[in-house]
Amino acid sequence: MHTPLSDQLRILLGPVDLADIDPGATPGAVSHEQTEDELPKLAARLDDLQRRLFAAAQGGHSTRRVLLVLQGMDTSGKGGTVRHVVGQLNPNGIRLTAFKAPTEQEREHDFLWRIRRALPEPGEIGIFDRSHYEDVLIARVRKLVPPMVVGRRYQLINRFEQQLTAEGTVLVKCFLHISRDEQMRRLLARLDDPTKRWKYNPGDVDERALWPEYQEAYRRALEKCSTDEAPWYVVPADHKWYRNYAITRLLIEALERIDPQYPPGDYDVEVERERVLASG
Amino acid sequence: MHTPLSDQLRILLGPVDLADIDPGATPGAVSHEQTEDELPKLAARLDDLQRRLFAAAQGGHSTRRVLLVLQGMDTSGKGGTVRHVVGQLNPNGIRLTAFKAPTEQEREHDFLWRIRRALPEPGEIGIFDRSHYEDVLIARVRKLVPPMVVGRRYQLINRFEQQLTAEGTVLVKCFLHISRDEQMRRLLARLDDPTKRWKYNPGDVDERALWPEYQEAYRRALEKCSTDEAPWYVVPADHKWYRNYAITRLLIEALERIDPQYPPGDYDVEVERERVLASG
Repeated sequence: MHTPLSDQLRILLGPVDLADIDPGATPGAVSHEQTEDELPKLAARLDDLQRRLFAAAQGGHSTRRVLLVLQGMDTSGKGGTVRHVVGQLNPNGIRLTAFKAPTEQEREHDFLWRIRRALPEPGEIGIFDRSHYEDVLIARVRKLVPPMVVGRRYQLINRFEQQLTAEGTVLVKCFLHISRDEQMRRLLARLDDPTKRWKYNPGDVDERALWPEYQEAYRRALEKCSTDEAPWYVVPADHKWYRNYAITRLLIEALERIDPQYPPGDYDVEVERERVLASG
Repeated sequence: MHTPLSDQLRILLGPVDLADIDPGATPGAVSHEQTEDELPKLAARLDDLQRRLFAAAQGGHSTRRVLLVLQGMDTSGKGGTVRHVVGQLNPNGIRLTAFKAPTEQEREHDFLWRIRRALPEPGEIGIFDRSHYEDVLIARVRKLVPPMVVGRRYQLINRFEQQLTAEGTVLVKCFLHISRDEQMRRLLARLDDPTKRWKYNPGDVDERALWPEYQEAYRRALEKCSTDEAPWYVVPADHKWYRNYAITRLLIEALERIDPQYPPGDYDVEVERERVLASG
Protein backbone atom coordinates (compact mmCIF):
# COMPACT_ATOMS: atom_id res chain seq x y z
CA MET A 1 0.00 0.00 0.00
CA HIS A 2 0.94 3.60 -0.54
CA THR A 3 1.76 6.06 2.18
CA PRO A 4 -0.87 8.77 1.79
CA LEU A 5 0.06 11.30 -0.87
CA SER A 6 -1.89 13.89 1.08
CA ASP A 7 0.80 13.76 3.76
CA GLN A 8 3.52 14.34 1.18
CA LEU A 9 1.92 17.21 -0.73
CA ARG A 10 0.12 19.16 1.95
CA ILE A 11 1.33 22.53 3.05
CA LEU A 12 2.32 22.47 6.68
CA LEU A 13 1.69 25.33 9.03
CA GLY A 14 4.41 27.94 8.89
CA PRO A 15 6.29 29.82 6.19
CA VAL A 16 5.87 28.63 2.61
CA ASP A 17 8.53 28.98 -0.09
CA LEU A 18 7.35 27.82 -3.51
CA ALA A 19 10.91 28.07 -4.84
CA ASP A 20 11.72 25.09 -2.60
CA ILE A 21 9.21 22.87 -4.38
CA ASP A 22 10.34 21.48 -7.74
CA PRO A 23 7.49 21.66 -10.30
CA GLY A 24 9.14 18.72 -12.11
CA ALA A 25 9.16 16.47 -9.05
CA THR A 26 7.05 13.31 -8.82
CA PRO A 27 6.72 12.50 -5.11
CA GLY A 28 5.05 9.19 -4.39
CA ALA A 29 5.41 7.94 -7.96
CA VAL A 30 8.07 5.40 -8.88
CA SER A 31 7.95 6.01 -12.63
CA HIS A 32 5.61 7.16 -15.36
CA GLU A 33 5.28 3.60 -16.59
CA GLN A 34 4.41 2.11 -13.22
CA THR A 35 1.88 4.90 -12.72
CA GLU A 36 0.17 4.00 -16.00
CA ASP A 37 -0.06 0.40 -14.88
CA GLU A 38 -1.68 1.51 -11.65
CA LEU A 39 -4.35 3.68 -13.29
CA PRO A 40 -7.05 1.04 -13.92
CA LYS A 41 -6.92 0.00 -10.26
CA LEU A 42 -7.15 3.62 -9.13
CA ALA A 43 -10.06 4.28 -11.51
CA ALA A 44 -11.93 1.27 -10.14
CA ARG A 45 -11.29 2.37 -6.56
CA LEU A 46 -12.47 5.91 -7.35
CA ASP A 47 -15.59 4.53 -9.02
CA ASP A 48 -16.44 2.33 -6.04
CA LEU A 49 -15.98 5.21 -3.61
CA GLN A 50 -18.05 7.61 -5.72
CA ARG A 51 -20.90 5.06 -5.94
CA ARG A 52 -20.86 4.68 -2.16
CA LEU A 53 -20.72 8.41 -1.53
CA PHE A 54 -23.72 8.98 -3.82
CA ALA A 55 -25.70 6.07 -2.41
CA ALA A 56 -25.06 7.11 1.19
CA ALA A 57 -26.61 10.50 0.50
CA GLN A 58 -29.48 9.38 -1.73
CA GLY A 59 -30.58 6.42 0.27
CA GLY A 60 -29.04 7.04 3.64
CA HIS A 61 -29.29 10.78 4.26
CA SER A 62 -25.55 11.27 4.70
CA THR A 63 -24.40 14.88 4.27
CA ARG A 64 -20.85 13.97 3.27
CA ARG A 65 -19.45 15.38 0.03
CA VAL A 66 -16.14 16.38 -1.55
CA LEU A 67 -15.00 19.66 -3.04
CA LEU A 68 -11.97 19.64 -5.33
CA VAL A 69 -10.51 23.12 -5.81
CA LEU A 70 -8.12 23.62 -8.75
CA GLN A 71 -5.89 26.68 -8.85
CA GLY A 72 -2.80 27.48 -10.85
CA MET A 73 -1.27 29.78 -13.43
CA ASP A 74 -2.50 29.79 -17.04
CA THR A 75 -1.60 26.48 -18.76
CA SER A 76 -0.95 24.79 -15.39
CA GLY A 77 -3.45 22.09 -16.31
CA LYS A 78 -6.76 22.87 -14.63
CA GLY A 79 -8.65 21.95 -17.79
CA GLY A 80 -6.55 18.85 -18.33
CA THR A 81 -7.27 17.74 -14.77
CA VAL A 82 -10.99 18.11 -15.42
CA ARG A 83 -10.71 16.07 -18.61
CA HIS A 84 -8.50 13.29 -17.28
CA VAL A 85 -9.23 13.08 -13.55
CA VAL A 86 -12.81 14.32 -13.25
CA GLY A 87 -13.54 12.54 -16.54
CA GLN A 88 -13.09 9.23 -14.71
CA LEU A 89 -16.10 9.95 -12.52
CA ASN A 90 -19.78 9.27 -13.19
CA PRO A 91 -21.15 12.61 -14.47
CA ASN A 92 -24.25 11.98 -12.41
CA GLY A 93 -22.80 12.93 -9.05
CA ILE A 94 -20.36 15.65 -10.00
CA ARG A 95 -20.94 19.36 -9.91
CA LEU A 96 -18.38 21.26 -11.94
CA THR A 97 -18.04 25.02 -12.11
CA ALA A 98 -15.43 26.97 -14.08
CA PHE A 99 -15.25 30.42 -12.54
CA LYS A 100 -14.54 33.30 -14.91
CA ALA A 101 -14.18 37.01 -14.18
CA PRO A 102 -17.24 37.85 -12.08
CA THR A 103 -20.32 39.07 -13.95
CA GLU A 104 -21.98 42.34 -13.10
CA GLN A 105 -24.59 40.50 -11.06
CA GLU A 106 -21.92 38.58 -9.17
CA ARG A 107 -19.99 41.76 -8.41
CA GLU A 108 -23.08 43.16 -6.66
CA HIS A 109 -22.70 40.48 -3.99
CA ASP A 110 -19.89 39.55 -1.61
CA PHE A 111 -17.16 37.45 -3.21
CA LEU A 112 -18.40 34.17 -1.67
CA TRP A 113 -21.95 34.54 -3.03
CA ARG A 114 -21.33 32.84 -6.36
CA ILE A 115 -19.18 30.23 -4.64
CA ARG A 116 -22.00 29.23 -2.27
CA ARG A 117 -24.34 28.72 -5.23
CA ALA A 118 -21.91 26.27 -6.83
CA LEU A 119 -21.23 24.03 -3.81
CA PRO A 120 -21.78 20.29 -4.10
CA GLU A 121 -24.89 18.75 -2.60
CA PRO A 122 -24.59 15.78 -0.23
CA GLY A 123 -23.25 12.77 -2.12
CA GLU A 124 -21.72 14.88 -4.87
CA ILE A 125 -18.15 15.61 -5.81
CA GLY A 126 -17.87 19.31 -6.54
CA ILE A 127 -15.09 20.66 -8.73
CA PHE A 128 -14.03 24.30 -8.88
CA ASP A 129 -11.88 25.23 -11.88
CA ARG A 130 -10.65 28.45 -10.27
CA SER A 131 -12.48 29.48 -7.12
CA HIS A 132 -12.87 32.01 -4.32
CA TYR A 133 -9.06 32.07 -4.22
CA GLU A 134 -9.06 34.28 -7.32
CA ASP A 135 -10.30 36.98 -4.95
CA VAL A 136 -6.98 36.91 -3.11
CA LEU A 137 -4.87 36.17 -6.21
CA ILE A 138 -5.74 38.27 -9.26
CA ALA A 139 -7.52 40.66 -6.90
CA ARG A 140 -4.20 41.19 -5.08
CA VAL A 141 -1.92 41.26 -8.12
CA ARG A 142 -4.18 43.49 -10.18
CA LYS A 143 -5.10 45.61 -7.14
CA LEU A 144 -8.80 45.15 -7.79
CA VAL A 145 -9.47 45.89 -4.12
CA PRO A 146 -7.39 47.61 -1.40
CA PRO A 147 -4.78 45.43 0.39
CA MET A 148 -6.80 45.54 3.62
CA VAL A 149 -9.74 43.95 1.86
CA VAL A 150 -7.53 41.15 0.58
CA GLY A 151 -6.15 40.69 4.09
CA ARG A 152 -9.67 40.35 5.47
CA ARG A 153 -10.61 37.84 2.77
CA TYR A 154 -8.09 35.25 3.96
CA GLN A 155 -9.95 35.17 7.26
CA LEU A 156 -13.34 35.06 5.58
CA ILE A 157 -12.16 32.16 3.43
CA ASN A 158 -10.90 30.24 6.44
CA ARG A 159 -14.16 30.74 8.28
CA PHE A 160 -16.15 29.76 5.18
CA GLU A 161 -14.16 26.58 4.65
CA GLN A 162 -14.46 25.70 8.32
CA GLN A 163 -18.25 25.89 7.92
CA LEU A 164 -18.09 23.66 4.86
CA THR A 165 -16.11 20.99 6.66
CA ALA A 166 -18.48 21.22 9.65
CA GLU A 167 -21.37 20.54 7.24
CA GLY A 168 -19.70 17.36 5.96
CA THR A 169 -17.55 18.54 3.06
CA VAL A 170 -14.00 17.31 2.59
CA LEU A 171 -12.00 19.93 0.70
CA VAL A 172 -9.16 18.97 -1.64
CA LYS A 173 -7.42 22.22 -2.55
CA CYS A 174 -4.77 21.71 -5.23
CA PHE A 175 -2.28 24.28 -6.42
CA LEU A 176 -0.98 23.10 -9.79
CA HIS A 177 2.63 24.16 -9.55
CA ILE A 178 4.36 24.67 -12.91
CA SER A 179 7.65 26.32 -13.76
CA ARG A 180 7.92 29.50 -15.75
CA ASP A 181 9.79 27.62 -18.50
CA GLU A 182 7.05 25.03 -18.75
CA GLN A 183 4.46 27.76 -19.12
CA MET A 184 6.40 29.19 -22.06
CA ARG A 185 6.53 25.77 -23.73
CA ARG A 186 2.80 25.33 -23.28
CA LEU A 187 1.92 28.78 -24.59
CA LEU A 188 4.06 28.14 -27.68
CA ALA A 189 2.40 24.74 -28.12
CA ARG A 190 -0.99 26.43 -28.20
CA LEU A 191 0.21 28.75 -30.94
CA ASP A 192 1.79 25.92 -32.93
CA ASP A 193 -1.26 23.65 -32.94
CA PRO A 194 -4.23 24.86 -35.03
CA THR A 195 -6.58 22.79 -32.83
CA LYS A 196 -5.35 24.67 -29.74
CA ARG A 197 -5.11 28.24 -31.02
CA TRP A 198 -8.54 29.12 -29.64
CA LYS A 199 -7.17 28.48 -26.14
CA TYR A 200 -4.56 31.18 -26.53
CA ASN A 201 -5.32 34.74 -25.55
CA PRO A 202 -2.87 37.61 -26.11
CA GLY A 203 -3.66 38.69 -22.54
CA ASP A 204 -1.93 35.51 -21.32
CA VAL A 205 1.44 37.14 -21.99
CA ASP A 206 0.49 40.16 -19.91
CA GLU A 207 -0.41 37.89 -17.00
CA ARG A 208 2.83 35.98 -17.50
CA ALA A 209 4.77 39.23 -17.08
CA LEU A 210 3.37 39.31 -13.54
CA TRP A 211 4.73 35.83 -12.72
CA PRO A 212 6.64 36.89 -9.56
CA GLU A 213 3.66 38.83 -8.25
CA TYR A 214 1.39 35.82 -8.77
CA GLN A 215 3.85 33.47 -7.10
CA GLU A 216 3.89 35.80 -4.13
CA ALA A 217 0.09 35.97 -4.08
CA TYR A 218 -0.07 32.16 -4.18
CA ARG A 219 2.54 31.89 -1.45
CA ARG A 220 0.43 34.08 0.83
CA ALA A 221 -2.81 32.28 0.03
CA LEU A 222 -1.23 28.89 0.70
CA GLU A 223 0.36 30.11 3.91
CA LYS A 224 -2.72 31.81 5.30
CA CYS A 225 -5.39 29.39 4.15
CA SER A 226 -3.83 25.96 4.63
CA THR A 227 -5.63 24.84 7.75
CA ASP A 228 -6.01 21.53 9.52
CA GLU A 229 -9.59 21.29 8.29
CA ALA A 230 -8.83 22.35 4.72
CA PRO A 231 -5.16 21.99 3.84
CA TRP A 232 -3.62 23.11 0.57
CA TYR A 233 -1.78 20.58 -1.57
CA VAL A 234 1.02 21.72 -3.84
CA VAL A 235 0.92 19.39 -6.85
CA PRO A 236 4.06 19.51 -9.00
CA ALA A 237 2.52 19.90 -12.44
CA ASP A 238 5.27 20.15 -15.06
CA HIS A 239 4.56 16.47 -15.79
CA LYS A 240 0.94 16.09 -16.83
CA TRP A 241 0.93 12.37 -16.08
CA TYR A 242 2.09 13.04 -12.53
CA ARG A 243 -0.48 15.80 -12.00
CA ASN A 244 -3.31 13.47 -13.04
CA TYR A 245 -1.96 10.63 -10.95
CA ALA A 246 -1.46 12.76 -7.85
CA ILE A 247 -4.89 14.39 -7.97
CA THR A 248 -6.58 11.04 -8.55
CA ARG A 249 -4.87 9.74 -5.44
CA LEU A 250 -5.74 12.84 -3.42
CA LEU A 251 -9.40 12.38 -4.38
CA ILE A 252 -9.30 8.72 -3.40
CA GLU A 253 -7.72 9.55 -0.07
CA ALA A 254 -10.36 12.21 0.61
CA LEU A 255 -13.12 9.71 -0.10
CA GLU A 256 -11.42 7.10 2.04
CA ARG A 257 -11.45 9.51 4.95
CA ILE A 258 -15.23 9.71 4.51
CA ASP A 259 -15.42 5.92 4.09
CA PRO A 260 -18.99 6.01 2.71
CA GLN A 261 -21.16 2.91 3.12
CA TYR A 262 -24.10 1.60 1.12
CA PRO A 263 -27.26 2.29 3.08
CA PRO A 264 -29.75 -0.47 3.80
CA GLY A 265 -33.14 0.12 2.16
CA ASP A 266 -35.76 1.61 4.46
CA TYR A 267 -38.23 -1.07 3.38
CA ASP A 268 -38.63 -4.82 3.85
CA VAL A 269 -36.74 -6.53 1.02
CA GLU A 270 -38.80 -9.74 1.18
CA VAL A 271 -42.11 -7.89 1.13
CA GLU A 272 -40.98 -5.84 -1.85
CA ARG A 273 -39.72 -8.90 -3.73
CA GLU A 274 -43.18 -10.42 -3.37
CA ARG A 275 -44.83 -7.21 -4.52
CA VAL A 276 -42.65 -7.04 -7.64
CA LEU A 277 -43.25 -10.69 -8.48
CA ALA A 278 -47.00 -10.20 -8.05
CA SER A 279 -47.00 -7.11 -10.28
CA GLY A 280 -47.26 -9.11 -13.51
CA MET B 1 -19.33 3.27 -43.17
CA HIS B 2 -22.62 2.93 -41.32
CA THR B 3 -25.96 4.01 -42.62
CA PRO B 4 -27.12 6.62 -40.12
CA LEU B 5 -28.74 5.06 -37.06
CA SER B 6 -30.86 8.18 -36.73
CA ASP B 7 -32.72 7.12 -39.89
CA GLN B 8 -33.39 3.69 -38.44
CA LEU B 9 -34.57 4.72 -34.98
CA ARG B 10 -36.46 7.92 -35.62
CA ILE B 11 -40.21 8.09 -35.30
CA LEU B 12 -41.75 8.95 -38.63
CA LEU B 13 -44.77 11.18 -38.96
CA GLY B 14 -48.02 9.30 -38.55
CA PRO B 15 -49.43 6.78 -36.08
CA VAL B 16 -47.03 5.21 -33.60
CA ASP B 17 -47.43 1.72 -32.14
CA LEU B 18 -44.82 0.88 -29.54
CA ALA B 19 -45.96 -2.75 -29.54
CA ASP B 20 -44.50 -2.98 -33.05
CA ILE B 21 -41.02 -2.13 -31.82
CA ASP B 22 -39.12 -4.97 -30.13
CA PRO B 23 -37.30 -3.72 -26.99
CA GLY B 24 -34.82 -6.56 -27.48
CA ALA B 25 -33.92 -5.57 -31.05
CA THR B 26 -30.49 -4.31 -32.02
CA PRO B 27 -30.93 -2.44 -35.30
CA GLY B 28 -27.69 -1.30 -36.90
CA ALA B 29 -25.54 -3.57 -34.72
CA VAL B 30 -24.09 -6.80 -36.10
CA SER B 31 -23.30 -8.36 -32.71
CA HIS B 32 -22.43 -7.41 -29.16
CA GLU B 33 -18.84 -8.44 -29.76
CA GLN B 34 -18.38 -6.38 -32.91
CA THR B 35 -19.95 -3.41 -31.12
CA GLU B 36 -17.40 -3.69 -28.32
CA ASP B 37 -14.60 -3.68 -30.87
CA GLU B 38 -16.02 -0.53 -32.39
CA LEU B 39 -16.28 1.41 -29.13
CA PRO B 40 -12.75 2.89 -28.96
CA LYS B 41 -13.17 4.32 -32.45
CA LEU B 42 -16.56 5.77 -31.58
CA ALA B 43 -15.20 7.26 -28.35
CA ALA B 44 -12.35 8.91 -30.25
CA ARG B 45 -14.75 10.30 -32.83
CA LEU B 46 -17.06 11.64 -30.13
CA ASP B 47 -14.10 13.24 -28.37
CA ASP B 48 -12.91 14.95 -31.54
CA LEU B 49 -16.37 16.30 -32.30
CA GLN B 50 -16.89 17.55 -28.75
CA ARG B 51 -13.55 19.36 -28.82
CA ARG B 52 -14.50 21.06 -32.07
CA LEU B 53 -17.98 21.99 -30.86
CA PHE B 54 -16.53 23.58 -27.72
CA ALA B 55 -13.73 25.37 -29.58
CA ALA B 56 -16.10 26.74 -32.22
CA ALA B 57 -18.18 28.41 -29.52
CA GLN B 58 -15.32 29.58 -27.27
CA GLY B 59 -13.05 30.91 -29.96
CA GLY B 60 -15.33 31.31 -32.91
CA HIS B 61 -18.64 32.55 -31.54
CA SER B 62 -20.67 29.65 -32.94
CA THR B 63 -24.05 29.19 -31.25
CA ARG B 64 -24.31 25.48 -32.08
CA ARG B 65 -24.98 23.03 -29.25
CA VAL B 66 -26.57 19.65 -28.61
CA LEU B 67 -29.32 18.62 -26.21
CA LEU B 68 -29.70 14.93 -25.39
CA VAL B 69 -33.08 14.14 -23.84
CA LEU B 70 -33.45 10.81 -22.03
CA GLN B 71 -36.90 9.45 -21.25
CA GLY B 72 -38.11 6.02 -20.30
CA MET B 73 -39.80 3.96 -17.61
CA ASP B 74 -38.10 3.30 -14.28
CA THR B 75 -35.04 1.04 -14.76
CA SER B 76 -34.99 1.74 -18.51
CA GLY B 77 -31.38 2.90 -18.22
CA LYS B 78 -31.34 6.68 -18.09
CA GLY B 79 -28.75 6.63 -15.31
CA GLY B 80 -26.72 3.95 -17.07
CA THR B 81 -26.70 6.05 -20.23
CA VAL B 82 -25.35 8.99 -18.27
CA ARG B 83 -22.62 6.83 -16.74
CA HIS B 84 -21.55 5.01 -19.90
CA VAL B 85 -22.36 7.37 -22.78
CA VAL B 86 -22.13 10.82 -21.22
CA GLY B 87 -19.21 9.53 -19.15
CA GLN B 88 -17.18 9.35 -22.35
CA LEU B 89 -17.37 13.12 -22.77
CA ASN B 90 -15.13 15.81 -21.31
CA PRO B 91 -17.01 17.04 -18.21
CA ASN B 92 -15.96 20.56 -19.14
CA GLY B 93 -18.48 21.11 -21.90
CA ILE B 94 -21.44 19.11 -20.66
CA ARG B 95 -24.43 20.40 -18.76
CA LEU B 96 -26.35 17.61 -17.08
CA THR B 97 -29.66 17.99 -15.27
CA ALA B 98 -31.66 15.21 -13.63
CA PHE B 99 -35.21 16.47 -13.29
CA LYS B 100 -37.14 15.32 -10.25
CA ALA B 101 -40.71 16.10 -9.19
CA PRO B 102 -40.95 19.90 -9.46
CA THR B 103 -40.17 21.89 -6.33
CA GLU B 104 -42.61 24.38 -4.90
CA GLN B 105 -40.70 27.22 -6.56
CA GLU B 106 -40.75 25.43 -9.91
CA ARG B 107 -44.48 24.78 -9.66
CA GLU B 108 -45.07 28.52 -9.36
CA HIS B 109 -43.84 28.93 -12.94
CA ASP B 110 -44.95 27.47 -16.27
CA PHE B 111 -43.66 23.95 -16.89
CA LEU B 112 -40.90 25.08 -19.27
CA TRP B 113 -39.39 27.55 -16.80
CA ARG B 114 -37.03 25.10 -15.10
CA ILE B 115 -36.22 23.57 -18.47
CA ARG B 116 -35.07 26.89 -19.92
CA ARG B 117 -32.72 27.40 -16.96
CA ALA B 118 -31.02 24.07 -17.66
CA LEU B 119 -30.39 24.48 -21.40
CA PRO B 120 -26.86 24.06 -22.76
CA GLU B 121 -24.85 27.13 -23.66
CA PRO B 122 -23.23 27.40 -27.10
CA GLY B 123 -20.53 24.75 -27.46
CA GLU B 124 -21.99 22.57 -24.73
CA ILE B 125 -23.69 19.19 -24.84
CA GLY B 126 -26.72 19.35 -22.57
CA ILE B 127 -28.20 16.19 -21.10
CA PHE B 128 -31.68 15.95 -19.61
CA ASP B 129 -32.30 12.87 -17.45
CA ARG B 130 -36.08 13.22 -17.66
CA SER B 131 -37.32 16.48 -19.08
CA HIS B 132 -40.30 18.66 -20.02
CA TYR B 133 -41.86 15.46 -21.35
CA GLU B 134 -42.70 14.43 -17.80
CA ASP B 135 -45.33 17.15 -18.01
CA VAL B 136 -47.20 15.16 -20.67
CA LEU B 137 -46.32 11.73 -19.21
CA ILE B 138 -46.73 11.46 -15.45
CA ALA B 139 -48.92 14.58 -15.63
CA ARG B 140 -51.29 12.71 -17.99
CA VAL B 141 -51.18 9.33 -16.25
CA ARG B 142 -51.52 10.72 -12.75
CA LYS B 143 -54.00 13.39 -13.90
CA LEU B 144 -51.93 16.16 -12.34
CA VAL B 145 -53.56 18.62 -14.74
CA PRO B 146 -56.77 18.47 -16.84
CA PRO B 147 -56.53 16.66 -20.21
CA MET B 148 -56.93 19.94 -22.10
CA VAL B 149 -53.83 21.32 -20.44
CA VAL B 150 -51.86 18.25 -21.47
CA GLY B 151 -53.20 18.65 -25.01
CA ARG B 152 -52.00 22.23 -25.10
CA ARG B 153 -48.57 21.25 -23.79
CA TYR B 154 -47.73 19.15 -26.85
CA GLN B 155 -48.05 22.29 -28.93
CA LEU B 156 -46.09 24.39 -26.47
CA ILE B 157 -43.33 21.77 -26.49
CA ASN B 158 -43.19 21.72 -30.28
CA ARG B 159 -42.98 25.49 -30.43
CA PHE B 160 -40.33 25.53 -27.69
CA GLU B 161 -38.20 22.93 -29.44
CA GLN B 162 -38.55 24.76 -32.75
CA GLN B 163 -37.11 27.85 -31.05
CA LEU B 164 -34.23 25.81 -29.68
CA THR B 165 -33.32 24.45 -33.09
CA ALA B 166 -33.62 27.93 -34.60
CA GLU B 167 -31.10 29.13 -31.99
CA GLY B 168 -28.60 26.47 -33.03
CA THR B 169 -29.45 23.48 -30.85
CA VAL B 170 -29.61 19.97 -32.25
CA LEU B 171 -31.98 17.88 -30.15
CA VAL B 172 -31.47 14.15 -29.67
CA LYS B 173 -34.61 12.86 -27.96
CA CYS B 174 -34.30 9.22 -26.93
CA PHE B 175 -37.06 7.04 -25.59
CA LEU B 176 -35.42 4.08 -23.85
CA HIS B 177 -37.81 1.32 -24.77
CA ILE B 178 -37.78 -1.67 -22.38
CA SER B 179 -40.18 -4.56 -22.01
CA ARG B 180 -42.34 -5.11 -18.98
CA ASP B 181 -40.51 -8.38 -18.28
CA GLU B 182 -37.16 -6.68 -18.37
CA GLN B 183 -38.36 -4.07 -15.89
CA MET B 184 -39.33 -6.85 -13.49
CA ARG B 185 -35.89 -8.43 -13.81
CA ARG B 186 -34.22 -5.11 -13.11
CA LEU B 187 -36.39 -4.28 -10.12
CA LEU B 188 -35.62 -7.71 -8.63
CA ALA B 189 -31.93 -7.18 -9.34
CA ARG B 190 -32.02 -3.98 -7.32
CA LEU B 191 -33.53 -5.83 -4.39
CA ASP B 192 -31.06 -8.71 -4.67
CA ASP B 193 -27.92 -6.56 -4.72
CA PRO B 194 -27.08 -4.77 -1.42
CA THR B 195 -25.16 -2.12 -3.41
CA LYS B 196 -28.28 -1.33 -5.43
CA ARG B 197 -31.01 -1.42 -2.79
CA TRP B 198 -30.90 2.35 -2.31
CA LYS B 199 -32.07 2.71 -5.93
CA TYR B 200 -35.27 0.82 -5.22
CA ASN B 201 -38.35 2.67 -4.06
CA PRO B 202 -41.58 0.86 -3.06
CA GLY B 203 -43.41 3.45 -5.16
CA ASP B 204 -41.77 1.92 -8.27
CA VAL B 205 -44.25 -0.97 -8.10
CA ASP B 206 -47.18 1.45 -8.02
CA GLU B 207 -45.86 3.13 -11.15
CA ARG B 208 -45.32 -0.27 -12.75
CA ALA B 209 -49.01 -1.08 -12.21
CA LEU B 210 -49.73 1.81 -14.58
CA TRP B 211 -47.56 0.35 -17.35
CA PRO B 212 -50.27 0.42 -20.06
CA GLU B 213 -51.22 4.00 -19.20
CA TYR B 214 -47.59 5.07 -19.42
CA GLN B 215 -47.07 3.29 -22.73
CA GLU B 216 -50.12 5.14 -24.07
CA ALA B 217 -48.80 8.45 -22.74
CA TYR B 218 -45.43 7.79 -24.40
CA ARG B 219 -47.15 6.78 -27.62
CA ARG B 220 -48.97 10.11 -27.72
CA ALA B 221 -45.91 12.16 -26.85
CA LEU B 222 -43.84 10.43 -29.53
CA GLU B 223 -46.59 10.84 -32.09
CA LYS B 224 -47.33 14.49 -31.39
CA CYS B 225 -43.82 15.73 -30.68
CA SER B 226 -41.66 13.93 -33.22
CA THR B 227 -41.04 16.75 -35.69
CA ASP B 228 -38.66 17.26 -38.56
CA GLU B 229 -36.67 19.69 -36.46
CA ALA B 230 -36.66 17.57 -33.34
CA PRO B 231 -37.47 13.90 -34.03
CA TRP B 232 -37.90 11.27 -31.36
CA TYR B 233 -35.73 8.18 -31.45
CA VAL B 234 -37.02 4.91 -30.02
CA VAL B 235 -33.96 3.10 -28.65
CA PRO B 236 -34.57 -0.59 -27.91
CA ALA B 237 -33.14 -0.82 -24.41
CA ASP B 238 -33.53 -4.36 -23.10
CA HIS B 239 -29.85 -4.84 -24.02
CA LYS B 240 -27.76 -2.31 -22.13
CA TRP B 241 -24.83 -2.70 -24.51
CA TYR B 242 -27.06 -1.86 -27.46
CA ARG B 243 -28.61 1.14 -25.71
CA ASN B 244 -25.16 2.60 -25.01
CA TYR B 245 -23.96 1.87 -28.52
CA ALA B 246 -27.03 3.35 -30.18
CA ILE B 247 -27.06 6.56 -28.16
CA THR B 248 -23.33 7.05 -28.70
CA ARG B 249 -23.93 6.81 -32.43
CA LEU B 250 -26.94 9.14 -32.30
CA LEU B 251 -24.80 11.72 -30.49
CA ILE B 252 -22.04 11.38 -33.05
CA GLU B 253 -24.49 11.76 -35.91
CA ALA B 254 -25.98 14.88 -34.31
CA LEU B 255 -22.52 16.41 -33.98
CA GLU B 256 -21.67 15.45 -37.54
CA ARG B 257 -24.72 17.34 -38.73
CA ILE B 258 -23.27 20.41 -37.01
CA ASP B 259 -19.81 19.62 -38.42
CA PRO B 260 -18.03 22.02 -36.03
CA GLN B 261 -14.68 23.47 -37.10
CA TYR B 262 -11.72 24.76 -35.10
CA PRO B 263 -11.75 28.54 -35.29
CA PRO B 264 -8.66 30.48 -36.33
CA GLY B 265 -7.28 32.73 -33.60
CA ASP B 266 -8.31 36.37 -33.86
CA TYR B 267 -4.69 37.41 -33.40
CA ASP B 268 -1.48 37.24 -35.43
CA VAL B 269 0.22 33.93 -34.59
CA GLU B 270 3.72 35.13 -35.52
CA VAL B 271 3.42 38.31 -33.49
CA GLU B 272 2.24 36.32 -30.47
CA ARG B 273 5.01 33.75 -30.82
CA GLU B 274 7.55 36.58 -30.66
CA ARG B 275 5.80 38.08 -27.63
CA VAL B 276 5.86 34.76 -25.77
CA LEU B 277 9.53 34.15 -26.63
CA ALA B 278 10.41 37.67 -25.45
CA SER B 279 8.53 37.22 -22.18
CA GLY B 280 11.44 35.47 -20.45
